Amino acid sequence: MSQYAKPLANLIRELSKLPGIGGKTAQRLAFYILSMEERDAKSLAASITRAKDEMKYCSVCGNLTDKDPCDICSDAERDSSTICVVEQAKDVAAMERMKEYRGVYHVLHGAISPMDGIGPEDINLRQLILRLQQNDVKEVILATNPTIEGEATAMYAARLIKPAGIKVTRIAHGIPVGGDLEYADEVTLSKAMEGRNEL
Amino acid sequence: MSQYAKPLANLIRELSKLPGIGGKTAQRLAFYILSMEERDAKSLAASITRAKDEMKYCSVCGNLTDKDPCDICSDAERDSSTICVVEQAKDVAAMERMKEYRGVYHVLHGAISPMDGIGPEDINLRQLILRLQQNDVKEVILATNPTIEGEATAMYAARLIKPAGIKVTRIAHGIPVGGDLEYADEVTLSKAMEGRNEL
Repeated sequence: MSQYAKPLANLIRELSKLPGIGGKTAQRLAFYILSMEERDAKSLAASITRAKDEMKYCSVCGNLTDKDPCDICSDAERDSSTICVVEQAKDVAAMERMKEYRGVYHVLHGAISPMDGIGPEDINLRQLILRLQQNDVKEVILATNPTIEGEATAMYAARLIKPAGIKVTRIAHGIPVGGDLEYADEVTLSKAMEGRNEL
Repeated sequence: MSQYAKPLANLIRELSKLPGIGGKTAQRLAFYILSMEERDAKSLAASITRAKDEMKYCSVCGNLTDKDPCDICSDAERDSSTICVVEQAKDVAAMERMKEYRGVYHVLHGAISPMDGIGPEDINLRQLILRLQQNDVKEVILATNPTIEGEATAMYAARLIKPAGIKVTRIAHGIPVGGDLEYADEVTLSKAMEGRNEL
C-alpha cells in the first residue's frame, strides 16, 4: 500500500478490517470518502463515534439500546409474560421487522459451543433464569439459530426452564416461504416433515 | 429502520450512503462496529476524519496527497519529462502498483462527456497545457480509460498537445493477460488486431 499517502493508507487499512470488506473494496470506499463533501464524511465519522458511545446493552434483556431499559422492555403494551430468546441483538431486529410479535426478548450474546470453549456460563443464561424467577412468565420461545450450537443452546435452556413449569417452545424449522422442495437440503426437509401440521 | 435505536439507525443510514453498501450490508457493518473494541471503532472514525482533513490534491499533478507537491512530483529520481495522463487519482495508484513507470502523472479528475455536460474546461486540462509550456516534456502518455469518454478526452488532448511538437502516445488496448479470446468482446478483439506487433 506504499503507493498511498499515509492518511489514505491508514483509512484503507481501517476499512479493510470490517467484515466482507477486502483490500479492493476498502480502496474504493476510501477514494469515495475522500470525494465526499467535507460535511458528509465528518458525519459518517461522527455517527460511528456516537453509536459506539451511546449504544449499550439493556440491563433487562441484553438488547442493543440507547436507553436502559430498552424501548421494548419499557413498552407497557408489550406482553412481558412471553420471552423470545435469541442469540444476538441483530436477531431482535429481524424479529421486530416481522411486526407481529408483541412479547419481549432475551439476548444470549452467543450460543453454547464446546468446540470454541463457550459453555452455558459464558452466555447470558443466568440473567434469563433470574428474570423467570422474578417475573410472571408464561412462555419462553427459543429462537436460537437452527445450527448445532443454536440447537444445543435451545436444548440446554429448555432443560433448565421446564422444571419451573413454564411453557417452552422452539420456532419451527422447515422449507422457507418461496423456497423450492427441489433445492431444500435433507435436514431441512426432514424437519419440515417432522413438523407437519394437519389441515 | 424504526426497530433500531437512533444512534444505531443513524450509523446504518450513514454507512448505506457508501457505494456498494446496501441496507443489509450497512446493518451487518453497524452491528460489527458496535461489537468492536472501543479503541478500534474510534480509530476507524478518526481515520475518516484525518484522511478527509489531511488529504488534498497536488498542485502540480492533481494526485491525492498529504504533502504538496506530492511524493511523485517531488521525487528527483523520477523522469519529469514523461507525463502519464489519467482520469482519476485511483488510476495513479493502479499505475504505481505496476512498479515500472518512472515518469510523473497528471490527473484530469474526470473525462470529457458532453452527455453529462462535462466539457474540456471542466477537467484539469488547462493545468496540463501550462505544465507542458513551463517544463521540458518529451512525451505525454494518454492513459484515460478505454470508454467513449476516455477516448474522446484522449483525442481532444492529443489534438491540443501535438502542435507543440511533443510526442503523444496512447496506452495499448487488447486482450488482457490471462484472458481468453473466446470471451473477448468484438471491440477489444478489433483493438487487439489493430495494435498487433511483429515478432
